[in-house]
Amino acid sequence: MGERRLEECIAKWRSVLGSEHVITDCAALDRSGTATFATASAVYAVLRPGSREEIQKCIRIANDARVPLYPISTGKNWGYGSSVPTADACVLDLGRLNRILDFSEELAYVTIEPGVTQRALYEYLQARQSRLWIDATGASPETSILGNTLERGFGHTPYGDHFANVCGLEVILADGSVVDTGFSRFEGCKAGPLYRWGVGPVLDGLFSQSNLGIVTRMTVWLMPAPEYFQAFYFRCDRDDHLRDLIDALRPLRINGTLRSAMHIVNDYKVISAIQPYPWEEMGGSTPLVGPAMQTLRKKYQCGVWNGSGGLYGTRGQVAEARRLVMRALRGKVNKLQFLDDRKLNLAARFSKPYSAVTGWDLTRALELVRPVYGLMKGIPTEQPLRSCYWRKRHIPTEMDIDRDRCGLLWCSPIAPASGGHALTISGIAHRVLLGHGFEPLISITLLTERTIGCVISITYDRDLPGEDERAMTCHQELLKELNEQGYVPYRLGVQSMDQMQGSNGYNQLLRALKAQMDPNGILSPGRYEPRNADASERMSEQIEYGN
Amino acid sequence: MGERRLEECIAKWRSVLGSEHVITDCAALDRSGTATFATASAVYAVLRPGSREEIQKCIRIANDARVPLYPISTGKNWGYGSSVPTADACVLDLGRLNRILDFSEELAYVTIEPGVTQRALYEYLQARQSRLWIDATGASPETSILGNTLERGFGHTPYGDHFANVCGLEVILADGSVVDTGFSRFEGCKAGPLYRWGVGPVLDGLFSQSNLGIVTRMTVWLMPAPEYFQAFYFRCDRDDHLRDLIDALRPLRINGTLRSAMHIVNDYKVISAIQPYPWEEMGGSTPLVGPAMQTLRKKYQCGVWNGSGGLYGTRGQVAEARRLVMRALRGKVNKLQFLDDRKLNLAARFSKPYSAVTGWDLTRALELVRPVYGLMKGIPTEQPLRSCYWRKRHIPTEMDIDRDRCGLLWCSPIAPASGGHALTISGIAHRVLLGHGFEPLISITLLTERTIGCVISITYDRDLPGEDERAMTCHQELLKELNEQGYVPYRLGVQSMDQMQGSNGYNQLLRALKAQMDPNGILSPGRYEPRNADASERMSEQIEYGN
Repeated sequence: MGERRLEECIAKWRSVLGSEHVITDCAALDRSGTATFATASAVYAVLRPGSREEIQKCIRIANDARVPLYPISTGKNWGYGSSVPTADACVLDLGRLNRILDFSEELAYVTIEPGVTQRALYEYLQARQSRLWIDATGASPETSILGNTLERGFGHTPYGDHFANVCGLEVILADGSVVDTGFSRFEGCKAGPLYRWGVGPVLDGLFSQSNLGIVTRMTVWLMPAPEYFQAFYFRCDRDDHLRDLIDALRPLRINGTLRSAMHIVNDYKVISAIQPYPWEEMGGSTPLVGPAMQTLRKKYQCGVWNGSGGLYGTRGQVAEARRLVMRALRGKVNKLQFLDDRKLNLAARFSKPYSAVTGWDLTRALELVRPVYGLMKGIPTEQPLRSCYWRKRHIPTEMDIDRDRCGLLWCSPIAPASGGHALTISGIAHRVLLGHGFEPLISITLLTERTIGCVISITYDRDLPGEDERAMTCHQELLKELNEQGYVPYRLGVQSMDQMQGSNGYNQLLRALKAQMDPNGILSPGRYEPRNADASERMSEQIEYGN
Repeated sequence: MGERRLEECIAKWRSVLGSEHVITDCAALDRSGTATFATASAVYAVLRPGSREEIQKCIRIANDARVPLYPISTGKNWGYGSSVPTADACVLDLGRLNRILDFSEELAYVTIEPGVTQRALYEYLQARQSRLWIDATGASPETSILGNTLERGFGHTPYGDHFANVCGLEVILADGSVVDTGFSRFEGCKAGPLYRWGVGPVLDGLFSQSNLGIVTRMTVWLMPAPEYFQAFYFRCDRDDHLRDLIDALRPLRINGTLRSAMHIVNDYKVISAIQPYPWEEMGGSTPLVGPAMQTLRKKYQCGVWNGSGGLYGTRGQVAEARRLVMRALRGKVNKLQFLDDRKLNLAARFSKPYSAVTGWDLTRALELVRPVYGLMKGIPTEQPLRSCYWRKRHIPTEMDIDRDRCGLLWCSPIAPASGGHALTISGIAHRVLLGHGFEPLISITLLTERTIGCVISITYDRDLPGEDERAMTCHQELLKELNEQGYVPYRLGVQSMDQMQGSNGYNQLLRALKAQMDPNGILSPGRYEPRNADASERMSEQIEYGN
């Protein structure tokens, strides 16, 4: 990268944003360039615009100088690359755009900017005593809702498929122009925040998992709190029961009895959320297998598979759903329990006497149950983050998995909601990960009526020499094998964005659109671009040798 | 248009498709160029390719000669332009591509080509004794499912928002290349027909209400028949009760109790579906108002507003939903009735004795109820088509509203699901249509959780001199007033596709995409193109003067 050209750019950005919002000190750049696995791209600077107009100015400067920008919302795209760019770039941190622009209790939506976090929205609703719930992910309260939605993340309520529950994007293109999608492009249109398609071609999808524009506004639909909520939990003690389980739940998902994206996680995933790796019991060796694993399963009353789901509705609707869930799971699970607010409060009140009498630590159990229970009601939590510290020797009070050098690589194939497919994917994950010395932490989500989304985590300690490489080799092998079997991931890490090819027509069209919309390739070069995308290569050449 | 160039094209198409599939006789071109209102564009020829490869060849020939093609599926886009192009063109009739390519009972989907009609799919499922239901529109059994879905039509079941329930498009672009969207672009990907987003940018929306490509394949998700189905019907005798009604139903729609796109229609809409205009009673004058209207309402026990909806689920789920519907509508409707298969069959059996005793023609009532009841179970019907003959003197046995010169102009604004908005739209429709001498036939659909879709029909007799012009003037005034009030239509007729402007960013981007993807502007010039779209103008100039 031409040093001088970059210097000039930075000076211009400073004059637009103020010096305090153009960050170039090494420590900060290092933080911004650190993910939960080894990455190759450098961060030249971090720009922190405070408004749409400032973004437009930044982008024009970048365009003139052919310096790539890599927009992030809050940069917590953990397991997929955090805030690290797909190619050397300046990070455009949109965190200061954190306004909630519109809100309707009656029509159940909120219009937000990229910097609005799960916590901010949750607290906003709480402060208004709103009866609306957000759909939270297990990532952390500090993650961006808009960013997660554009990446097509998913949560735990009936609004779990995030990108299916938004509309009315405002997008800044590489030339600085602004596009409003759907009905939001019509001034005064009353259905702007409510109706997804608008009239004419639907452009929203172009800006999801993409590098074609910078989304600066989005309307997110919210779920009205039901009259009554009940959670259910179950466990299976046999691995192959997963097949029957999924096949039993699919009809309930497809007929609308189960309205939420319910989750099933394996033993490793449960245990890693409760405690760190049992270094002592394992005599320091990895991976965790054999009797030590059985002991832990027993200790935490943890099944090989463990599920949780929410039932939402009137008392009558929930009672009927509960009956159907019980009927469907009969003989297929080893334990099935239902929990509601009343039971949870009672348990909390009686946990001490209960523990004294039974010797079983109910307080501890509640600590574990509460966050998952809360997630199903849209309450963000950082508890699931603890599992990222699985192989670390210490969990700090304030978790920051990038800073703490937690190793985390996510691979997230989608499959038909059929038990056989779930079992196949789990089998591949177990074989490949254990073969490379890692525990397969698996969650399986009944993401839509017809599909399951599996998230397979490779969790390791980046401070151990050679672990980064071993983990990446393992990840690549996993991705390759899953693809070969027809299980394509719904989302990619920065390290594998050029590896999903598919048929040529889509790739050609995407390249043509990119060339048309961002001729200098300054927006996130390489991000979700098919291989041989020549734009980024051309551009880096230009930068290298001037033009 | 250069005669010679067209002649050469036609000769080439003939050699590709065979002469019988390149239609140029005047009567046929006239049929293809006839909609339910006055249109301006000429049809040069109708091409009937039989395969994807033939489409590709046709399109290449068209591109070489700069002759525009206007693809239709079955051409029954009634009320919005039928098969008439937005500019002079050759109609590319895809009706021969009518295969059902894939089907899964377990995962509840079907993959279809453009020529698959509602009837064909319904019969396909019946023949397999499938437990899956389609979502039918009231248009006619002979309409294309793919075409309706791309136009974002809607039906009556929980899968009512058609474009929200499809994925995996195959699209032929103007250069003849083929794009597979979503996961369907990965060979062997198991979630291809199941998961909408795929990985990377989502392109499906680009090809809906658009002229950017020709969709030749689509996977449509189907609804598993519920264990139990119950319909409910209600009527309100006061116009302003519409407000309370919508406000009472919205919470049930948003909380998932009402899962389907339920419909509310006004008195004119009901009566027009039962009988033709009461010419005699009105002494030949129009529009129908005053005592004659009251008499008809009384005769058919028809409210000012009349609603119908479906309850789907287990017996327990339906019973609870019924309780909630009853509670919500108490005091807001004049009559609320529930109907299921058993009751309907009983009524049919006893209709004759019942009529004899009560004097009320139950058989006739059943004739009216059955089609609407069937639509809620995904059974296509042509009964609602009858209302298009409202102002005609005669309804033929085989209805063809284009041929029979039925006048029909649809205007379909979307509004927030709030009673006040419904009332405002209805008020505008009444004032504008009656002011021009037409009855406002209105249906209001609880299309999504947060919006209502209103369809306002201007129904007239094209054989009456001057009616075409009067109806169009009325339509334009209606569209203008609705837009000014913030009620933008979800769909446009060929006559008004250049009238929806909105903010400039979207329009510019759309034009850029069109220029990139179809530089010669040969695909449906003018279709959903914002005004001043220069592509079509440029192109017609080129054709006019050669290039």
